[in-house]
Amino acid sequence: MTKAEASRQSRPAFLGELFETLTERGRRLLWRRDAGDAPQPPELSELAQALLSRRGEASGVALARGLLAAFDHAGPDARLGFLRVLAERFGPDPAAVKAALAAIEHDPDALEDLHSAAEPRRQELLRRLNLAPGGTAALVHMREELLSHLRSDPSLRRVDDDFAHLFGSWFNRGFLVLRHIDWNTPAAILEKIIRYEAVHAIQNWDDLRNRLQPTDRRCYGFFHPQMVDEPLIFVEVALTRAIPDAVGGLLDLKRKPIEAEEATTAVFYSISNTQRGLAGVSFGNFLIKQVVEELKAELPNIRTFVTLSPVPGFAAWLAAARKDEASDLIDADQRIAFALLDEPGWHKDATKAEALRAPLLAAAATYFLRARDGKGRVPDPVARFHLGNGAQLERMNHLGDVSANGLKQAHGLMVNYLYDLDRIEVNHEAFAERGTVAAASVVARALPTT
Amino acid sequence: MTKAEASRQSRPAFLGELFETLTERGRRLLWRRDAGDAPQPPELSELAQALLSRRGEASGVALARGLLAAFDHAGPDARLGFLRVLAERFGPDPAAVKAALAAIEHDPDALEDLHSAAEPRRQELLRRLNLAPGGTAALVHMREELLSHLRSDPSLRRVDDDFAHLFGSWFNRGFLVLRHIDWNTPAAILEKIIRYEAVHAIQNWDDLRNRLQPTDRRCYGFFHPQMVDEPLIFVEVALTRAIPDAVGGLLDLKRKPIEAEEATTAVFYSISNTQRGLAGVSFGNFLIKQVVEELKAELPNIRTFVTLSPVPGFAAWLAAARKDEASDLIDADQRIAFALLDEPGWHKDATKAEALRAPLLAAAATYFLRARDGKGRVPDPVARFHLGNGAQLERMNHLGDVSANGLKQAHGLMVNYLYDLDRIEVNHEAFAERGTVAAASVVARALPTT
Amino acid sequence: MTKAEASRQSRPAFLGELFETLTERGRRLLWRRDAGDAPQPPELSELAQALLSRRGEASGVALARGLLAAFDHAGPDARLGFLRVLAERFGPDPAAVKAALAAIEHDPDALEDLHSAAEPRRQELLRRLNLAPGGTAALVHMREELLSHLRSDPSLRRVDDDFAHLFGSWFNRGFLVLRHIDWNTPAAILEKIIRYEAVHAIQNWDDLRNRLQPTDRRCYGFFHPQMVDEPLIFVEVALTRAIPDAVGGLLDLKRKPIEAEEATTAVFYSISNTQRGLAGVSFGNFLIKQVVEELKAELPNIRTFVTLSPVPGFAAWLAAARKDEASDLIDADQRIAFALLDEPGWHKDATKAEALRAPLLAAAATYFLRARDGKGRVPDPVARFHLGNGAQLERMNHLGDVSANGLKQAHGLMVNYLYDLDRIEVNHEAFAERGTVAAASVVARALPTT
Amino acid sequence: MTKAEASRQSRPAFLGELFETLTERGRRLLWRRDAGDAPQPPELSELAQALLSRRGEASGVALARGLLAAFDHAGPDARLGFLRVLAERFGPDPAAVKAALAAIEHDPDALEDLHSAAEPRRQELLRRLNLAPGGTAALVHMREELLSHLRSDPSLRRVDDDFAHLFGSWFNRGFLVLRHIDWNTPAAILEKIIRYEAVHAIQNWDDLRNRLQPTDRRCYGFFHPQMVDEPLIFVEVALTRAIPDAVGGLLDLKRKPIEAEEATTAVFYSISNTQRGLAGVSFGNFLIKQVVEELKAELPNIRTFVTLSPVPGFAAWLAAARKDEASDLIDADQRIAFALLDEPGWHKDATKAEALRAPLLAAAATYFLRARDGKGRVPDPVARFHLGNGAQLERMNHLGDVSANGLKQAHGLMVNYLYDLDRIEVNHEAFAERGTVAAASVVARALPTT
Repeated sequence: MTKAEASRQSRPAFLGELFETLTERGRRLLWRRDAGDAPQPPELSELAQALLSRRGEASGVALARGLLAAFDHAGPDARLGFLRVLAERFGPDPAAVKAALAAIEHDPDALEDLHSAAEPRRQELLRRLNLAPGGTAALVHMREELLSHLRSDPSLRRVDDDFAHLFGSWFNRGFLVLRHIDWNTPAAILEKIIRYEAVHAIQNWDDLRNRLQPTDRRCYGFFHPQMVDEPLIFVEVALTRAIPDAVGGLLDLKRKPIEAEEATTAVFYSISNTQRGLAGVSFGNFLIKQVVEELKAELPNIRTFVTLSPVPGFAAWLAAARKDEASDLIDADQRIAFALLDEPGWHKDATKAEALRAPLLAAAATYFLRARDGKGRVPDPVARFHLGNGAQLERMNHLGDVSANGLKQAHGLMVNYLYDLDRIEVNHEAFAERGTVAAASVVARALPTT
Repeated sequence: MTKAEASRQSRPAFLGELFETLTERGRRLLWRRDAGDAPQPPELSELAQALLSRRGEASGVALARGLLAAFDHAGPDARLGFLRVLAERFGPDPAAVKAALAAIEHDPDALEDLHSAAEPRRQELLRRLNLAPGGTAALVHMREELLSHLRSDPSLRRVDDDFAHLFGSWFNRGFLVLRHIDWNTPAAILEKIIRYEAVHAIQNWDDLRNRLQPTDRRCYGFFHPQMVDEPLIFVEVALTRAIPDAVGGLLDLKRKPIEAEEATTAVFYSISNTQRGLAGVSFGNFLIKQVVEELKAELPNIRTFVTLSPVPGFAAWLAAARKDEASDLIDADQRIAFALLDEPGWHKDATKAEALRAPLLAAAATYFLRARDGKGRVPDPVARFHLGNGAQLERMNHLGDVSANGLKQAHGLMVNYLYDLDRIEVNHEAFAERGTVAAASVVARALPTT
Repeated sequence: MTKAEASRQSRPAFLGELFETLTERGRRLLWRRDAGDAPQPPELSELAQALLSRRGEASGVALARGLLAAFDHAGPDARLGFLRVLAERFGPDPAAVKAALAAIEHDPDALEDLHSAAEPRRQELLRRLNLAPGGTAALVHMREELLSHLRSDPSLRRVDDDFAHLFGSWFNRGFLVLRHIDWNTPAAILEKIIRYEAVHAIQNWDDLRNRLQPTDRRCYGFFHPQMVDEPLIFVEVALTRAIPDAVGGLLDLKRKPIEAEEATTAVFYSISNTQRGLAGVSFGNFLIKQVVEELKAELPNIRTFVTLSPVPGFAAWLAAARKDEASDLIDADQRIAFALLDEPGWHKDATKAEALRAPLLAAAATYFLRARDGKGRVPDPVARFHLGNGAQLERMNHLGDVSANGLKQAHGLMVNYLYDLDRIEVNHEAFAERGTVAAASVVARALPTT
Repeated sequence: MTKAEASRQSRPAFLGELFETLTERGRRLLWRRDAGDAPQPPELSELAQALLSRRGEASGVALARGLLAAFDHAGPDARLGFLRVLAERFGPDPAAVKAALAAIEHDPDALEDLHSAAEPRRQELLRRLNLAPGGTAALVHMREELLSHLRSDPSLRRVDDDFAHLFGSWFNRGFLVLRHIDWNTPAAILEKIIRYEAVHAIQNWDDLRNRLQPTDRRCYGFFHPQMVDEPLIFVEVALTRAIPDAVGGLLDLKRKPIEAEEATTAVFYSISNTQRGLAGVSFGNFLIKQVVEELKAELPNIRTFVTLSPVPGFAAWLAAARKDEASDLIDADQRIAFALLDEPGWHKDATKAEALRAPLLAAAATYFLRARDGKGRVPDPVARFHLGNGAQLERMNHLGDVSANGLKQAHGLMVNYLYDLDRIEVNHEAFAERGTVAAASVVARALPTT
């Protein structure tokens, strides 16, 4: 961004001055003037039409800025109205499609032209909106709003498809920049790390520093050149001497750090997406693999790359299985043992906790290896992410997370997924094609023996 | 780009190690092994298939790097062969199109899905190739090569359309960064300015410094975040006290600079595109307008923004008009006067030069205002660019460029196009819709009086 | 700092590896080896001798690092012992001084050589210690420790003189870099702003953001190239529409910011030195003047530059005056009124607060204009700083700071000092030479009328 | 440097506006006004007095800028006059010295105060001049001019001593920044590399690129934070597979580079100081050692660090030895052989060149190991530099540099000095204390056998 753009952006964009960079005649063309009335600013949809028109070519940047600012200042109804107009009036041009189909009749090669003939005009509109300074971020936020209406207004789905298609191109991994986030990172970015952390909430700046500054901690994020102070996704890493079985020690503020050179294991203990408006554009896969390569290059002693991951669907699944007396996913002994789960504070009672260890791990093994959801998938979303990346389920940790949330969602269970670059491709393919879950033998051995 | 990526890129990519980041099994899957023979590296098209396949998801970056490097090392025939395979085998999926068309039959809304159903699979392939470090630049070069084959192999046109479509998105002006190029710019970029200058060749580093370092000179370029040391387009600007009528004074190495604050006029005397592979993706329009805004903000005394432009088609057009005795674009008096043009060195003879002034300027006025090419357009390509941007033809300068090239292409004629931001929109629209050329009255007055 | 240096610095410097960069023989020379014992690491003073010796020239950087690290790891006694050795054994060389004095006898010009002949050898030692990476910061901390012993051990004064002399050169204003501190500044620097703020304590990161991020707030600091993440001094500025009379509104977290362009006044409401080890090296004077110039260039609407300053010595001075019944600095009416000051919470009672206004302001006017301390100086240290810089006492504000500290040190009084660049020189000179206090007429008018 | 400062610096400083930042009264105080005449700008020496006076404190930066600019615009005579005034009128204050000496009489500890009492007032003046933006560079240039007058006016020596003393502090190695210079370095710095290269002239930008861009070339420089686009010293390095014996191959434009990782040897083939004004402030020692550490960290395969150095004093020494028939430094056989040296083009004649090999190498061994100059030193200045750093004379290369200059100064001889960090300290100490030259056995074996 140039200095002139930056100074423009830093000013609050009041609607009154929004169009100042439009030429005089530009304004006259857009402002509506009814008999005897003062001229009215244009509707959002009129601005969209103007931006797509021939005239828009000459003052595209100013018009794009104007439309985005007007959208920003409009009320919720006007905004939803605009999104609906996009759905209804900015689809493919039927005449163009018809002509393209006619051409195919006598020239099969014309099939190639069908794609562009059928392009919804929204896509060009979005590309032109992207001309504005800050346009990319504004469009990501526009889609975030759009997503919140999808359920109530399915006709917006087609608009969302166009957003998703373009974002897939614009946020191609080739355009993302991996950056190390540490205690020298600008506060404006760090406060977003605090805000967006989705796995283990960051309590305050001291907690944040504890995850960034010690010699055995790392944090990496993907940034896009057009959104320089917004990490799109970030991962927090602990460097350790062994695969950890619980998150408490990792986050302990009084922990004594080790030297990075002494570490043999890198633990990805939190990975968070930040932009709801980028839903469906997948970065995590690339991020983890690139961080593995970074760490390998920087610290050759590190040979093991694992996660310490929550199992968010386990407790719900287990409750359903217990409720369903016909289910053979858990056996009678387990059912009896699980009654202890209903006793508050069981995890603080060593005897009870130990009594639950084997039954819970057996149920967890079943959950990962045998249970499938309504769509035939591994039921756990985090498992699907890592297994889909080609990772292997390496270990299950009883009482790995005894926070309120950890107990509620997974009875304290945490697991480690192992990223072995030499095997991710085979794992990925087997999982994608046949649903085979790559798991260490210790997991299978935990299955109920019956 | 991260450090690890950079170090990888700086290494020459010998084919032997290209695939080192593929997993062992990845290599095994790709290498062809015929009975008894050593395994063979895969064909380019096999790599492309793999990259588009499910397996490609797990090791996309490595596969993309591999394919681009293999293309880089392949011979000309293999490369052309690969481009042809793209045209023939990576088009739209006919089955998907057929299904989409069937759906439209009973649901008009399904028209929205036709676009993606008809997307050539090349587009996804190109997006995946863009995953590789340096992928964007590699694809730009691949298209440059593709363009050189278009004439001899029109079937490649469809591949080119996909490149053009994606580049339009990737090189959206919103992703471009305006940078000031000066004597503090890295030499690696400056040598490209020397190499790419297309209008007034830069003789050597002293000539370059003379265009960058003085207080009354500026140079700006657009850069893309993925091609950080390659300006995509750049413009050279002189700050002056009046609209200049000749280029010689501007480029004079012994010229005495003025203070930037004393200047009233900014002269765009050279604008050069650098990447043939980005043909059709238009930046110049945006660049000039943004530089106008930059200069306005930095130097409020500057009120006039003009070009000093060549007229590359003038001499050829005039020769044709003289040859065509029936043409009424030039009159009899002019025809007689133009005989002087055939005398070598006429421009050094003050009498002859002066005798040609009025006839040449009259012919030039005709050339801009009345002549049209076979497609009904203003015949001069530079004129079409600036008029299409909304600029106005402000002045014609006899003997503005008496270099060999200036005499050859335009009998020494240069012109100034004026960028008046308050009028570019009207001008643009009139030119685009009605072909009306915005010109100062002095130009029209130069028309032959007959 | 190069990467290799940085990585070395980031490692904790355990004494065991401190000397690793000394050559083998370097170690052998320094390690003491008593009969039959393992070699002992050298004493600090031995390292100092070695560093000053001829041998030190060849491995100066390593020796300097070694000595600084050894000092860092030594216990308090050993450190104090080292500082005493500096005082006793590293002074001027008496023989050299004697020779220089002898030379003057027969050649008056030799007076010029006396300076260097009399240079304490400490100075060369400190210059050589400064060779080490991070040496400058280490020496600043060493002096901080030294200062804490000055009172109990006056012989260290001479060592302190040498530190002060060298720091005066090294931290010359020409070597300082003014940097804008804002919400994009690295957290590692911002946490130091929180820690070092000496005037109005920063409660937490939200409070900090409130002082940095709004459009009408600025913060500037001086940095030294050798201590890049340590501001040496910083000033917090509020941009306002009028000279403020109380600090509460400025620090209010719910305050509504104004546009910077609307401001007419810049208020320096807090200025903090950060390095006790740089005591006596004055930056504040330069900082304020340079920030005035920065703001003038950036925001031409700002015409008034004032402080909002505490009056830290006022309450103590007033207590003394009240106690001394013979003092004519306060009159009988004032004495009666000041009884209210002894009633807790008087400032919350509008009647009492108003009854105290005139007597307090009269006493304050006396404090600034008439009272002098034992050395004949204006008694208030903050006043001495700003008046010495050439500022003018512009206004006194009753109840400007009703925090506990503000009431305790100044009965709530705050004042504004005005920086008028056109008058600072006259003001400075009058103050420095004749003790004349530049004050607006409103201050003199507040003096007791008797 | 802040933006405001930068913009001030970029303006040419015409004397008329130089003092604009002085306050009105500041100007009035300085301008001399004789009866009836227009006020006259002050003399340089008056400015110096003002800067040292109390008044100077309030407007120190402006006065310092003014004096430096006035010096810059003064004619040669006025400048020399100013330097003489510095010598004569800004020495130590005799009264202060007298008082300090009196104090010593009855208090030996007062010896500590003599140093500062005897400080020439010039030193404080120079420190205050250093307040100005760009002051450091201006003072370096002022000393450069001073040095040019030293021979004709020895009284300036005392001024030079003060410059040297302060520069020693200001350019302490701790304040220097090592930077990699490569093809991405700004052209403004690179043109200085071309200009300052003192050993093997750089012909043009292609030659420069050939020394910076290939994978097996490096260049490093020391920069000072106050002179950011001026390398103070730089060294050019070639990475090779063996110790080179001639410079031709290193500089060959058509040479085929090797991979940096394949190199075993780093060759310092050129080291150039750039600022004559910093004469006597030694950087080369630190630069070479730090570059050795950089390269060791980056490229662990490199084990050997050598120079390829000229022998600038050899031919002159040999000529003197040949002329002095009584000299026993060369023997009769050598004298006969050396007659060939007088035949132009001998080095192109293989027979003659070979006939000279042994005698020349024998003379060179004598030159390094036995010959001493009038001060008892090794006669060669380059040898003194490297041996003083602790390097070892590793090898002598017949016909290592057959350029005109190489033949003229050393009959083509070049040598390699080896930097073995484990031995530099011993070597340095032996050389410094006993004059012992560290040399490989092959050098001693080349001595004349007689």
